[in-house]
Order: sequence, then C-alpha cells, then structure tokens
Amino acid sequence: MLVQDVRNCVIDVADLNQLKWDLNRLQAVDVGEYITQLPSKQRAIAFRLLNKHQATDVFEYLPPDVQEELINSLHDVQVVQIVENMSPDDRAELFDELPAKVVKRLLQQLSPEQRQVTATILGYPEGTAGRVMTTEYVRLREGLTVGEALSKIRRQDEDKETIYYAYVTDDNRKLVSVVSLRQLLFTFPDVLIRDIAGDRVVKVKTETPQEEVARVMKRYDLIALPVVDREDRLVGIITIDDVVDIIEEEATEDIQKLAGVSGDEAALSPPQITIRKRLPWLLGNIGLYIGAASAIAPFQGVISVVPVLAVIMPILSNTGGNVAIQALSVTVRGLGVGEVTPMDTMKILRKEILAGFGTALALAITLGTLSLIWSPAPERWVSIVAATVMAVNVFVAATLGTVLPMTLKRLNLDPALISGPLLTTTLDAIGFFTFLSMISVALRIFN
Amino acid sequence: MLVQDVRNCVIDVADLNQLKWDLNRLQAVDVGEYITQLPSKQRAIAFRLLNKHQATDVFEYLPPDVQEELINSLHDVQVVQIVENMSPDDRAELFDELPAKVVKRLLQQLSPEQRQVTATILGYPEGTAGRVMTTEYVRLREGLTVGEALSKIRRQDEDKETIYYAYVTDDNRKLVSVVSLRQLLFTFPDVLIRDIAGDRVVKVKTETPQEEVARVMKRYDLIALPVVDREDRLVGIITIDDVVDIIEEEATEDIQKLAGVSGDEAALSPPQITIRKRLPWLLGNIGLYIGAASAIAPFQGVISVVPVLAVIMPILSNTGGNVAIQALSVTVRGLGVGEVTPMDTMKILRKEILAGFGTALALAITLGTLSLIWSPAPERWVSIVAATVMAVNVFVAATLGTVLPMTLKRLNLDPALISGPLLTTTLDAIGFFTFLSMISVALRIFN
Repeated sequence: MLVQDVRNCVIDVADLNQLKWDLNRLQAVDVGEYITQLPSKQRAIAFRLLNKHQATDVFEYLPPDVQEELINSLHDVQVVQIVENMSPDDRAELFDELPAKVVKRLLQQLSPEQRQVTATILGYPEGTAGRVMTTEYVRLREGLTVGEALSKIRRQDEDKETIYYAYVTDDNRKLVSVVSLRQLLFTFPDVLIRDIAGDRVVKVKTETPQEEVARVMKRYDLIALPVVDREDRLVGIITIDDVVDIIEEEATEDIQKLAGVSGDEAALSPPQITIRKRLPWLLGNIGLYIGAASAIAPFQGVISVVPVLAVIMPILSNTGGNVAIQALSVTVRGLGVGEVTPMDTMKILRKEILAGFGTALALAITLGTLSLIWSPAPERWVSIVAATVMAVNVFVAATLGTVLPMTLKRLNLDPALISGPLLTTTLDAIGFFTFLSMISVALRIFN
Repeated sequence: MLVQDVRNCVIDVADLNQLKWDLNRLQAVDVGEYITQLPSKQRAIAFRLLNKHQATDVFEYLPPDVQEELINSLHDVQVVQIVENMSPDDRAELFDELPAKVVKRLLQQLSPEQRQVTATILGYPEGTAGRVMTTEYVRLREGLTVGEALSKIRRQDEDKETIYYAYVTDDNRKLVSVVSLRQLLFTFPDVLIRDIAGDRVVKVKTETPQEEVARVMKRYDLIALPVVDREDRLVGIITIDDVVDIIEEEATEDIQKLAGVSGDEAALSPPQITIRKRLPWLLGNIGLYIGAASAIAPFQGVISVVPVLAVIMPILSNTGGNVAIQALSVTVRGLGVGEVTPMDTMKILRKEILAGFGTALALAITLGTLSLIWSPAPERWVSIVAATVMAVNVFVAATLGTVLPMTLKRLNLDPALISGPLLTTTLDAIGFFTFLSMISVALRIFN
C-alpha cells in the first residue's frame, strides 16, 4: 500500500471493531499519524484498541506531547508495559522530553535490566553515538560454530533491532569483528566463527559526534554500526534508520543557521516559537547594521551632492551579500557532507580566489556601465569608483564566505555559526565605508 | 578500524606484494580513495593488484573521471569483467557519465541479461525510482514453503544487494507481499510463504520521483523498497544506501538553490564551474536590481533634501530580505523533509501571519526609534514613515517567503526555485518605492 493510500484511508470511528482491526493491521507510523490528528479525548480510546506489540511500535512514532498525554491518561500498568518494551534508544529520547517527575516514576517501575540500560544511554551527552545507540544487538563469542551462532540468533528475542549483523567479542567483551547473517547462511555449520570473521570492523566510540557517525555509516554503506567504550568493549549499535534522521536533522540545522534561524524551527511550529527563533537574529542584525549605517551617516553631505549614490549603494550591498552567501553555502555544505575537511582550506581558497577574480571582474564591468548611464555628466567618474569597490567587495565576500566557515571548523566550532545575515551585514559596513570615503576623496579632487 | 585510521594508513608503494595484500583487505571505499589520490600513471598499476571481487567493489567507489581513465588504460577483457559484475544501478550511473561511444562498445560486450537490465534502467528518466533501483533482489513464489524459500535464498548469487527481504509475487510476477529473512528464520520450514506474508507491502512505481522514494523509506524505516511497473509487476528494489545519498543530494540542492547557486556545485569544483554556476544568478539579480534601482532613481531629489534616507534604506532592505529568507528556508525545508504538504498552506500561512505581525511590530519600533535619533529635528517625521514601511515590508516578506514556495509545490514545481536573492531583490524594489513615495508625499505636506 502506498503512503498516499494510507493517508486517504477513511477510518470509521463509529465502528470500534472495524477500527481495532484496521489499527492493528496498518503500519505503526500511519497509525501514529492517525492517532495524533484525533481530538485529544479520542486518542486514549483509539490507543487502547492496539495489541501489546503494535501499541509499543505506534507509541514510538507519536510526537512528544501526545506521548506525554497518553502516559497521563493510560493506566500505569499499561504505560510501564509499553515503556519497558520500547527500544532503549527511543526510550531515552522519550525520557529526554518528559518532566523529571514522570521519568523518575517510570524508571522505578522498569525491570532492573532496562533501567540500567536507560540510565547508561542517558548518561552520554546529547548528539553523541552513546546517546543514539541501542543496546539490542546480537553478540557472538569467537569460539562458537556457525551452526551454534545460527541457533543462537534463532533463539533471540524478536526485539533485537537487527539480526542481520552479529558482533563478535572476545572473553573480555572486547569487539573483535562482525559477521553478517548472510555470511552465516552461506557457510557450513561446523566452521568456527573465529575462522570466518575478518580482522577488521568499522566502529565508533560512545563519545563520537552523531554527524561523524552518519558520515562513517554513509561512507561504508553500513546498515548497523557498533559502538565501543574507551576499553574497546562493545556497548551498543546504531542502526541506519537513526542515521537517516541524523542526516536530515543536520541538513535542516545547516539550512536554518545559514538563513539566520536559531535552532530547529519546524514549518508548523507555533507563532511564538517562530518569533523566538527568528527575532533575536533580526534584532542582533539591526544592531550590527547600526555599525553599517554609522559608516554612511558621516557622508550624508556627500549623498546630498551626489544622490545617484543612493541608487548605486543598494546594488553594491546586495551583490556583495549574494556572493558571500553563495560561497558560504557551498563551503558549509561541503563540510557538512564531509566532502572537504579543514585540511583542504588552501585548496578551496585557491579555487575561490580564482573564481572570485572572474566574478568580480564581470560584476565590476556591469556596475561600472550602469553607473555610467545613471550618473549625470559631471559625475561620470562615480562609475570608476563604483566598479573598483564592487570588484574588491565581491572578492572579499567570496574569500570570507569560504575562509570563515573553514576556520570555525578548524577550531572545532560549528561552521554554520557564520550565518548569512551576519556576514552580509559586516560586508555592507565595510563596502559602504570604502565606497563613500573614496567618493568624498574623489569629490575633493574633481570639484 | 575507524575511518581516521584508514585515512592515515601509510601504504608503501615500493613493496608491491605488501600493497597487494593491503589493497585486497581494506574496505573498498578506502581503496577507492587511495587510488584516486595516486598520480594518474600509478592508478592502473594499483588497480591491477586487486582481485576480481574487490576490483568491482572498488571501481564502484571511484569518481567518474578516474573510472573513465581506468576504462581506457585497462585491458578490454578486464573492463568488461568489472562492468559485467557491477550492480545494475551503479552500472547505469557509470554509463550516464561515459562518452556515448564507450558506452556502446561496453554494452555490446555485456552478457545479454545484463545488457537488457542496463538498457531498462537507463530507459527511465533521471531522478525517478526506475533509474536508481537495482534488479538484484530475491523473488519468491507464493506457493513455496519457508524451508524451500530458505534454500532458494542460500542458493542465490552472493551479488544480490540484499537477501534480508524477499519479495513475494504471483504467477504474473505481480508483487503480492514481502517477507523478511528474520520472519523466515523464526518460522517452521513447512509453513507456506503465502501464510506468513502479510497482505500489504509498501512499494513505489518506476516513475515515482526519488525524493518521494526517500520519504517513503524514511517514513516506514525500510532498508529496501520494491519498485513496480504500471501493471504492478515487480521490476526492482531500492536499497537504503542509495536513499542516504538521495537525502543528502536533495538537501544540498535546496541549500544551494536558496543561496542562488544553480545546480550542484561541490566545495572543490574547479573555478570555471563555480563561475558558471554562480555568475548567471548574480548578473540576473543585478538585472532585477535595475528595477529596484529605477524605483529609487526618480527620488534622487528627495534624497538630496533628506540624506538620512540613505542611512535608513539599507536597514529597511536588509531586514526585509532577512525575514524573507528565514521564512523561505523554513518552508522549503519543511516541504523537503515532507513535514508539510501544499494542503497545509492555510495552516502555515496563519502561523506566518501571526509570527509576522509580532516580528513586524518589534522591528518597526526598533527602526522608528533609530530614525528618530538619527534624523535632524525638522525631519523627525521620517521615523514614522520608516516604522510604517518596515512593518509592512516585514509582513509582506514573511508572507511571500511562505506562500511562494507552497504555491510552486502545489503547481508541482520545485519550491526552491524561489531563491533567496530573487525574493529579496523583489522586496527591495517594492520597499524602496513605497518608502520614497511616502517620504515625498510627506515632504510636500510638512515643508
């Protein structure tokens, strides 16, 4: 069934038996969406129709506010059952969102094993491998045979996130290797795991940042990646579905930071969130712009005399800003997908300098020509100044748009910290000041 | 082994035996990177050290220009062997990049089966499910038992992209269902496939756009997705590793289009590509800006009289532009990740109107106050005009930044077609004209 079909599926709330059948047979994500859009009162009713397995699956797909609402309206026994059966990484995510009081109560009611696992995951800082991993993986000792390994996998709890990879450890739980279910199925049952497992395994540490996790999994086309602690002991795995979310999250963050939206505003965030995420940037930017404006203020006399400047200045500012944002976006994205690293600074700089030179020349000629047409006869010299400042401005814009994010990355800071607005405002201040200073000097020479 | 370790791995070119051992034992992607950075002449030497299996794997990871170079420098027999063994989707990608003459020669030398498969994939338009799918999947008839299915899977070629999902078809090759290897392993061997397979399967059509493919796989947390033709017959599958690439590609495209970079410039593209991708936008934008400038030109007299306008106008323009880009980015991204659809236009518009109102008020007060400070006593009234135009400008900017991409999407066009520069330039033209018109009217009233 295509996703479109599911969305258009009309579910008849009047007939509870039919609804129960449908809800237990549809995909968990679709049921989650259905329950979310129900009026608040009906949500618990619909949710109680789910069988135990589906209830846990659906619960994992609900938005945090609906999860909290259900926790408050369902019976405690039912809540504990769901939370106990959630996969540890999703449970940690839920606990992050719930009030501390509720978390404490739930933690006390979990089985000792699950409580321990959850506490461990919550102990790692947000945005690290330890925080997004799950502890539900298949572990094999080196000394097993392939046949023993296969029956062990067959006996595993159905809840393991993936049984398609099994992680091989030594007696100290140190990660030694990985074998795929595929390898096991293609090998004679009496062969030792030790003999088919390679001596290499791609892995990350608990403290590895999640962007790096995504990059490693993408690079090696993995569907699961083991996580080890400082003693190289296996503590969890990260599965590809979480990585897909991480990749999308990181791209959204880059886009929004470049546009001057702080944090993670969603398209349908409520207006007060939108204002809170955007207004500080805008006000900060006007604050900065006072600097740019102050660069213009002393030259009001000059503008009175040569009012065509008020026509030329916005083009100068707009073009410089656009060049900066182009360079900034390409560089931040290149760093984001791992195409370039800070070690490539010289390479990328050389490219931007060459490209910037060509671009600057073309744009300087364009603005020079336009200024020549617009300026009245006695002020034709303005076009030469405009062309010169345009060239320099474009060149500086392309260079800064590249060097700044590379430098931030080298300092281990977020390269997207330089938002577009911040950079363009700074460039405006420099550009206006240079332009108007040169014009006043020229005025003194020519008049 | 961590990716960092691999990158720092020193490979001794002097000792070919050691090199051969290393190259055949390292991950294909790392070997690909190693060969790519070698001097052109040494690439073929290193590549010939790879065994048949590794050679194909490594070849798939090489950039197109290195692939073409190797095709020209290796023996034809070797090239055909590699190309024959490539997975059909990667082979189609390679053929896309190679000169038509080379493709024709290679196609003739492929086995009839692989030739047919490649021609089929290349027959679908770029960016559709048909083009990114692979034809190497496991297909089961409904009437098999679980035991028969498992031995069929065991007998499969090791080249199948995934054996973790098997697709169940009826006698007409129509896709009926999907079973996971996990299900098969957990079921008694004499049960019929028909009895464990559900009656639903998430699938896409060959013509489904790749963004939609990515969205469906992400939504249902799939690691493989079947592709059917118009008659609902199974023709291929798409695996999660390709989807990870699609998600990254789409995000990059959004970021670059928003920033006014056309197409897919990489951070390390050569300068001439950079100029070609960016300059047309910049020149087009100046062209548009002539419009904005023409809106200012007739008011040069006004600016002569009230030169503080040259200080205020850039702030007006800059802020309006930033507001537009914030709204645009959040909306384009929301559409990109599938958080909103064109059906949500009214919802998102209501939010932007409310948020825009608050933002406009705050920014109008800020600019009004600044103008009051900056204007000389007889022109204090300028601050009221500035505040009014700021409020209207911000409000219009937030609305357009939201409505335009939603409308494009509704018309089935790319919402990122409205680049930031295009929108800000248009807003500038409107803003400047309104501001200066109001000022001239006010001048006539007050002076």
